[in-house]
Amino acid sequence: MKARVFVTLKPSVFDPQGHTIGEALQSLGYDTVADVRQGKYFELDLRTTSAADAEALARDVASRVLANPVIESFRVELLDQAPAAAAPGGGR
Amino acid sequence: MKARVFVTLKPSVFDPQGHTIGEALQSLGYDTVADVRQGKYFELDLRTTSAADAEALARDVASRVLANPVIESFRVELLDQAPAAAAPGGGR
Repeated sequence: MKARVFVTLKPSVFDPQGHTIGEALQSLGYDTVADVRQGKYFELDLRTTSAADAEALARDVASRVLANPVIESFRVELLDQAPAAAAPGGGR
Repeated sequence: MKARVFVTLKPSVFDPQGHTIGEALQSLGYDTVADVRQGKYFELDLRTTSAADAEALARDVASRVLANPVIESFRVELLDQAPAAAAPGGGR
């Protein structure tokens, strides 16, 4: 099972990298880009078939290793809900 | 309207940073983590209310500025309209 972890700076924390990208885009003529925030993105390949286990593990790894909880927040999404095609909605 | 852009190394490109994170997690006892791939994540705040415009703009910015198309692929997701479209397979 795969899990995606998104780590972003908390909204109250200034993001100089994102700010610089935003300014660069403005100077390139992308006037409709009002703001940019940059974050990190991780794809974890987990040796478990239980969605609950995978989510718990991903959250544990994210909070203890991938994110700095003082200034960053994270979000976890699970992938691999049986990519066997057929009708969606099996919910496993 | 907000757009999220995910930039990841193409599957054929070795990801030393992700590999190192994976090894670190193994050494910390997270044995069920088989592999880690790291990518970048951007949140763009766009001054447009049209989903089509926002997606076109985000794709343009992603392909020309945020990602290196030689070694990276990107995926765009629009927010502000129920994140139901998290299905993989778009621009990967």
